Amino acid sequence: MRDVAIIGAGMTDFGKFLDRSMKDIAGEAVKGALDSAGVDKSKLEAAVVGNATAGLITGQEMIRGQVVLREMGIGGIPIINTENACASSSTAFHVAWMYVASGMYDVALAVGMEKLYHEDKRRSFQAIGAAVDVEWVQGMQAAARQAKENGDRGDNPAPEEGAGEKRSMFMDFYAAFARQHMQKYGTTKEQYARVAVKNHFHGSLNPHAQYREVYSLEDVLTSPPVAEPLTRLMCSPIGDGAAAVVLCTADKAKQFTSKPVYVRASVLGSGSDRGPGDPDITTRVARKAYEMAGVGPEDLNVLEVHDASAPAELVLYEELGLCAPGEGGKLIDSKATYFDGPKPVNTSGGLISKGHPIGATGVAQIYEIWTQLRGEAGDRQVRNPKVGLTENGGGMVKGEAAALSVHIFSV
Amino acid sequence: MRDVAIIGAGMTDFGKFLDRSMKDIAGEAVKGALDSAGVDKSKLEAAVVGNATAGLITGQEMIRGQVVLREMGIGGIPIINTENACASSSTAFHVAWMYVASGMYDVALAVGMEKLYHEDKRRSFQAIGAAVDVEWVQGMQAAARQAKENGDRGDNPAPEEGAGEKRSMFMDFYAAFARQHMQKYGTTKEQYARVAVKNHFHGSLNPHAQYREVYSLEDVLTSPPVAEPLTRLMCSPIGDGAAAVVLCTADKAKQFTSKPVYVRASVLGSGSDRGPGDPDITTRVARKAYEMAGVGPEDLNVLEVHDASAPAELVLYEELGLCAPGEGGKLIDSKATYFDGPKPVNTSGGLISKGHPIGATGVAQIYEIWTQLRGEAGDRQVRNPKVGLTENGGGMVKGEAAALSVHIFSV
Repeated sequence: MRDVAIIGAGMTDFGKFLDRSMKDIAGEAVKGALDSAGVDKSKLEAAVVGNATAGLITGQEMIRGQVVLREMGIGGIPIINTENACASSSTAFHVAWMYVASGMYDVALAVGMEKLYHEDKRRSFQAIGAAVDVEWVQGMQAAARQAKENGDRGDNPAPEEGAGEKRSMFMDFYAAFARQHMQKYGTTKEQYARVAVKNHFHGSLNPHAQYREVYSLEDVLTSPPVAEPLTRLMCSPIGDGAAAVVLCTADKAKQFTSKPVYVRASVLGSGSDRGPGDPDITTRVARKAYEMAGVGPEDLNVLEVHDASAPAELVLYEELGLCAPGEGGKLIDSKATYFDGPKPVNTSGGLISKGHPIGATGVAQIYEIWTQLRGEAGDRQVRNPKVGLTENGGGMVKGEAAALSVHIFSV
Repeated sequence: MRDVAIIGAGMTDFGKFLDRSMKDIAGEAVKGALDSAGVDKSKLEAAVVGNATAGLITGQEMIRGQVVLREMGIGGIPIINTENACASSSTAFHVAWMYVASGMYDVALAVGMEKLYHEDKRRSFQAIGAAVDVEWVQGMQAAARQAKENGDRGDNPAPEEGAGEKRSMFMDFYAAFARQHMQKYGTTKEQYARVAVKNHFHGSLNPHAQYREVYSLEDVLTSPPVAEPLTRLMCSPIGDGAAAVVLCTADKAKQFTSKPVYVRASVLGSGSDRGPGDPDITTRVARKAYEMAGVGPEDLNVLEVHDASAPAELVLYEELGLCAPGEGGKLIDSKATYFDGPKPVNTSGGLISKGHPIGATGVAQIYEIWTQLRGEAGDRQVRNPKVGLTENGGGMVKGEAAALSVHIFSV
């Protein structure tokens, strides 16, 4: 397979844009990527577009990429629409990378885009609820109704009926997961909160972030409870936004930019039926990515990870090998993962503060690593980073992420 | 890039299966493909799943592939969900092919699946309506309302409001297209009807076909009108079904089967802003595929093409180079495209008779070519075919297909 480089990247601000169309925001991100690459749209040979919820939010299904790209005069080329829940656009990037790595095309575009806000917020949460096995949820709810009628208590509460209308049911999963880690390793709610404090601080330094306020530990702990131990400031918000990158075969990259960012690994995985001792999905996918890139966690200078909630980031420290199992709490206590620490994580503000327009998140993470590796991250710039990683998870089936990607980049 | 072979294929019957789940039908197709390859599911290294409407029909979005594959114990591997309207699963095949051709994986699965039937048929038609630019349709309808209020007649009627609740608005596009061809070349309604007669005859010989009745020319011409010149028997029905194939690097294919079918070309394209004299999307994509495969239309022994309506097949004869522009009518008159003629087209019955569960169609076309090239097509077997082609179109943006793929295969 051929070496591949990113030669351009663009993204919109993340936020609430009820008055902007998907064409508008995706167009801004794509234009940004093309301009930064100095590539005319006519040079694109393929495009892959990730989006998760447009079908359920706006009714636009099936050809979402074509609809936005034709609007800006991009057509003729292969256009693939990928969906993998919150990992939809890192999946798009993976396919675009494959177009170039395989030798089929020299220049390809990857786009992530989402308009999650709707005037009726219930519709947004219902759409997010489609990232699990919908039949399974309906079955669990029916069983819970039956149990209630029979007077049973039931040890495994089903997803609350109607919960998806008020908040993402994912937060219930994250909360349960966070409580397990507390029980097993003595991790504290304060440690989770410190992740949120860090990411909100990072977000305050990122002009694209949806939330740019700085919060104290107390602010995070006393913000409205979502599901114990999660408070609102520990959770990613819903939002709108888009991000895009231009990929190119490495041997031509310097024709376009003096500072290409090279793709060292692109690995996608899905959840599996784990036997005792089998690694979790993140550990499994990350190991393959480290092997493909020929680097280890000790070589990483900057990471963007899927902090849909603060506890997720803390556990990811362990799964990605930044520290030993159970040591995630200590790592955040040490402030090692601040942008000026030895192992910066989520310098963009992460999903919690930068925002999480779910189909845009994967490429937006890559945008941040691109920016950092090129030394263009301004106030949140990591000192002289050489190797970066993105981790992006999506959906849930049978208790594990439905899709998870790890990408490794270097200058 | 590496040579790639298909080593196994499976499909369900196409039909109306209100009582079967997507897991059930996709599972049957995947099991069929694995069994025919003699490959255990544990050997699969990647899977790509195409589906178009589940989000709008059942609410299952984002991780449709994972939901059905985990049910049958397939997990851990990369799973990508692709969407490209009626070309969703030929797009899935294209990505699975790229996984193997690139050298990333040796064995990959491609699946197409659709449950288009819903107890409320309006929901099915509304879902199909998402294969165009939804904003554009809404804009056209609003303009038409305004024109009506102003008393204007308007020369370019907008898609009829509510039409999508009774039938696919695509049939209006197809009808307009058919009338243009009649006007330009003198093609007749009878010639279109003969395409339908042929495909229904072929479908009568295919145990998987949704409709297995034989119809006379008069039957087709007198069946209920849809939009002039289309009658109901010239149009593809809605339906449910699934199809799957297992791909493998060519140098290992004979470990699994004595009769591999080789992928000679896999090309995807999208609609573009055409200048005068620019080729249509089918011609453009087909030319690339012929070049990649090193064959021409004269070398083809069997074709499956996207006859969403009978006129489409007649025009495709010309665009794919089976005959000169304007000669499609003559070609069907000569019966050349019957399964026992010199240039057999849609031996499966095509979308008109085999059925068109839209996300399943692309891989189901490939299933037919696989079956024909291996000499396993029973009563509809083409005599000793060596080279086959599939053409699969999807969606519409600005008057051209949003996605179109051409694949060429050989033994």
